[in-house]
Amino acid sequence: MYAHRIRRPELLVRVMSADAAARLFAPAMTVGMSGFTRAGDAKALPRALVERSRGEPLGLTLITGASLGNDSDGLMANAGVIARRLPFQADATLRRKINTGEVLFIDQHLSETAEQLRSGALPAIDIAVIEAVAIRGDGGIVPTMAVGNSASFVQSAKQVIVELNLAAPLALEGLHDIYLPRARPDRAPIPLAAPGDRIGTTAIQVDPARIAAIVITDSPDSPSNVQPPDGETDAIARHVIAFLEGEVAAGRMTPRLLPLQAGIGTIANAVLHGLAQSSFRGLTMYSEVLQDSAIALLDGGQLALASASSITLSAPVHEQFLAHIERYRDRIVLRPQEISNHPEIVRRLGIIGLNTALEFDIYGNVNSTHVGGTHMMNGIGGSGDFARNGELAIFVSKSEAKNGAISSVVPMVAHVDHTEHDVDVLVTEWGLADLRGLAPRERAPLIIERCAHPAYRAALRDYHERALLRGGQTPHLLDEALAWHERHRLTGAMQP
Amino acid sequence: MYAHRIRRPELLVRVMSADAAARLFAPAMTVGMSGFTRAGDAKALPRALVERSRGEPLGLTLITGASLGNDSDGLMANAGVIARRLPFQADATLRRKINTGEVLFIDQHLSETAEQLRSGALPAIDIAVIEAVAIRGDGGIVPTMAVGNSASFVQSAKQVIVELNLAAPLALEGLHDIYLPRARPDRAPIPLAAPGDRIGTTAIQVDPARIAAIVITDSPDSPSNVQPPDGETDAIARHVIAFLEGEVAAGRMTPRLLPLQAGIGTIANAVLHGLAQSSFRGLTMYSEVLQDSAIALLDGGQLALASASSITLSAPVHEQFLAHIERYRDRIVLRPQEISNHPEIVRRLGIIGLNTALEFDIYGNVNSTHVGGTHMMNGIGGSGDFARNGELAIFVSKSEAKNGAISSVVPMVAHVDHTEHDVDVLVTEWGLADLRGLAPRERAPLIIERCAHPAYRAALRDYHERALLRGGQTPHLLDEALAWHERHRLTGAMQP
Repeated sequence: MYAHRIRRPELLVRVMSADAAARLFAPAMTVGMSGFTRAGDAKALPRALVERSRGEPLGLTLITGASLGNDSDGLMANAGVIARRLPFQADATLRRKINTGEVLFIDQHLSETAEQLRSGALPAIDIAVIEAVAIRGDGGIVPTMAVGNSASFVQSAKQVIVELNLAAPLALEGLHDIYLPRARPDRAPIPLAAPGDRIGTTAIQVDPARIAAIVITDSPDSPSNVQPPDGETDAIARHVIAFLEGEVAAGRMTPRLLPLQAGIGTIANAVLHGLAQSSFRGLTMYSEVLQDSAIALLDGGQLALASASSITLSAPVHEQFLAHIERYRDRIVLRPQEISNHPEIVRRLGIIGLNTALEFDIYGNVNSTHVGGTHMMNGIGGSGDFARNGELAIFVSKSEAKNGAISSVVPMVAHVDHTEHDVDVLVTEWGLADLRGLAPRERAPLIIERCAHPAYRAALRDYHERALLRGGQTPHLLDEALAWHERHRLTGAMQP
Repeated sequence: MYAHRIRRPELLVRVMSADAAARLFAPAMTVGMSGFTRAGDAKALPRALVERSRGEPLGLTLITGASLGNDSDGLMANAGVIARRLPFQADATLRRKINTGEVLFIDQHLSETAEQLRSGALPAIDIAVIEAVAIRGDGGIVPTMAVGNSASFVQSAKQVIVELNLAAPLALEGLHDIYLPRARPDRAPIPLAAPGDRIGTTAIQVDPARIAAIVITDSPDSPSNVQPPDGETDAIARHVIAFLEGEVAAGRMTPRLLPLQAGIGTIANAVLHGLAQSSFRGLTMYSEVLQDSAIALLDGGQLALASASSITLSAPVHEQFLAHIERYRDRIVLRPQEISNHPEIVRRLGIIGLNTALEFDIYGNVNSTHVGGTHMMNGIGGSGDFARNGELAIFVSKSEAKNGAISSVVPMVAHVDHTEHDVDVLVTEWGLADLRGLAPRERAPLIIERCAHPAYRAALRDYHERALLRGGQTPHLLDEALAWHERHRLTGAMQP
């Protein structure tokens, strides 16, 4: 009955229930699961593994593309399915377990997991669980709405479990472009010179003998949980667009700009939405994830094409997209995250990276991950892949959080994910600071006056002026540098 | 009389004194000078510019490859020749001026300056000053012992001054491989697949009409100032070699390893010297600088070939090298630093990067640049280029400094140049911590027990244990995290 989706007849006998497939797992295995920013994740196995863990917690090392949907991470963490997790997550329950130390979390650049699997720096995958649209006659696995690390998991795995999701239309076939670098030392240049180039195959190649189980599901991806734009995100969008218009006016870019990357989340999504009102045309995206905004820009004609590793949409846009895939077929490419985030390609194309900061400091260092400097939020994701190697690293944040109790602009960030060497532009609703070519002593006044909330500017100025008296390339008062964070921890507010 | 070195006859009339050439400069110009880690720097113009600055300080923006020799940076800083300096320096006088704020210093990844010149993020070069062995019949400039950013400066410059150094033997011709990426969006993959590949020309192409002056010099490069190996650097070398032998034993590398990069300085040089006693054969280097150790390994046969952007040697090795260049001609390639440090190549080849840390913390963050968190030492150099994108990022440091008053292992680094995401292995004379695949909570005990000086271990354990009580992915006591640095500032010692 699934012949149009399982096109290699001898594999039909591998169809089984999720519970049966879950019996393939043993404690302490290393498991790779499809899924990237809530898209393309396995829907049945996570819950079956929760059942399987009753009595004997599996304690797996779970590697994914990025975050999972369907509360899977939380359910698995609560049930003891997961002992170790990488490279990214965004689940409230798992986050709590990470911050108590019950689950160990390795917070990795998203381009690097595949490389570490290939080199053996990470243990080989025992079982890969991959959501698919279909299995081809040659055994090739056609992914759904995300490629993520799935091709690398399949390459490394002893056994592969395919979740065939009937809710994922067959029309998705052909959207993917699967290319993985060879092992060293015989690695060739990646032959991708423009965001839309197709350099691989449309399915993940696998020896069918390694497909140990096929589980049938029929449920859509979790909808994205970004918030709608508001006055502050609109202001951030205006500042970014004005800056990019300035780059064009100065002759440093054409009106097509350079390929855009936008991180997951509300602010980056809002900035992209803002581009609909801009004068830019013929834009391209070379990003890790496409959100509602990318579909809107493709529909509006501002965006000529988009490359990513995942598409994660709100429920209505998701439904529209799946109903009209043909509209987008020639303008969207889904790649392995190793390729969407690859240093080689990010530098070659000269990506404009737009990512969200939790906080940044007066010298331009960015904290993307650690609340209060110690507690994990989600993870660095791909922000570092793009900031380290792209043409422009833009970080956006609202200037305050928690109704003003927290300033996003601080004397010194309490955790550094992106160093001053990698950060080009900082933006809040108040304004934009272009740090390129500036020394730290020049950056501080600019960041304070352009980006900080007015309520915090005097205190930041005072800190910087007193720090200058102690001298240095990056003047600080080490006895006060983290006092704002400590005060917030003790009193609930950064202000004295 | 210079016909064998100036092979385009009409250029002979451009020969002039350094003082005459210095009159081409005007205040606030942007100037690019050859020179990378004391090698291949202009010898005459810096001093002529010091004279030229009397009465009217030039206040130039000075961009180089990396550090200059001959005290040039210090002399120019003292005379007001330099107002702004990038991307690297290593001069005591200039360092003082940077830390007082008299000279503004932009501390950049060495691969990025050329890119920023090309894109216009940095101002165009008014005058390039390039040390050369010869000017060819086609106008091509043959560099001396460093390529650095010279090709990019020449490409961008309105005027070019060539310093023809008669002390640099003509036999250097042919050692260089000049390749620059094209401007975007028409950029092709860089066609380099192995460390020794030659992909460009052996001279820097320039329209001879832009050669405004030729100044004749006759003085050798400043000798390198690395210290000889000692007991502690020998121990560090032994730990690194044992680790690499373990990688081979585990099947993650062949006995040829992967291409090696070693940062400038005493410890990295000592580790490479240690390889002479190892079982590795057929090694390659793809580095930014070659020091004495590389020549010794080439002579000893452990090293098959070496690619770099500069060769900086002690006086006796320098003399030997110049006298016997033919021995090395097929085994050394000198490239632009944009290519020696390029993200695309560093990831493709899978570089093993070996760089020196000033300090690192119990979670694996590295400070390479800021003494006490605030005062510039030299700059990040190429360490980030390799750590961000290579296969293995190894950072080495002696466990203590200033006779034990400073611990190189601290609760929290006071400045972050390399984040926990980018650091794989930490080494001191006490041992080695392999951080790959570990969560921060797992790294801390390992780093403390393996790397910290025994005199500091109890205090580090105590910090970590109390921090764990506050929870988090990266537990810290923000009120104490930088107290060791502050105590050192106030009392001269980190210990209470």
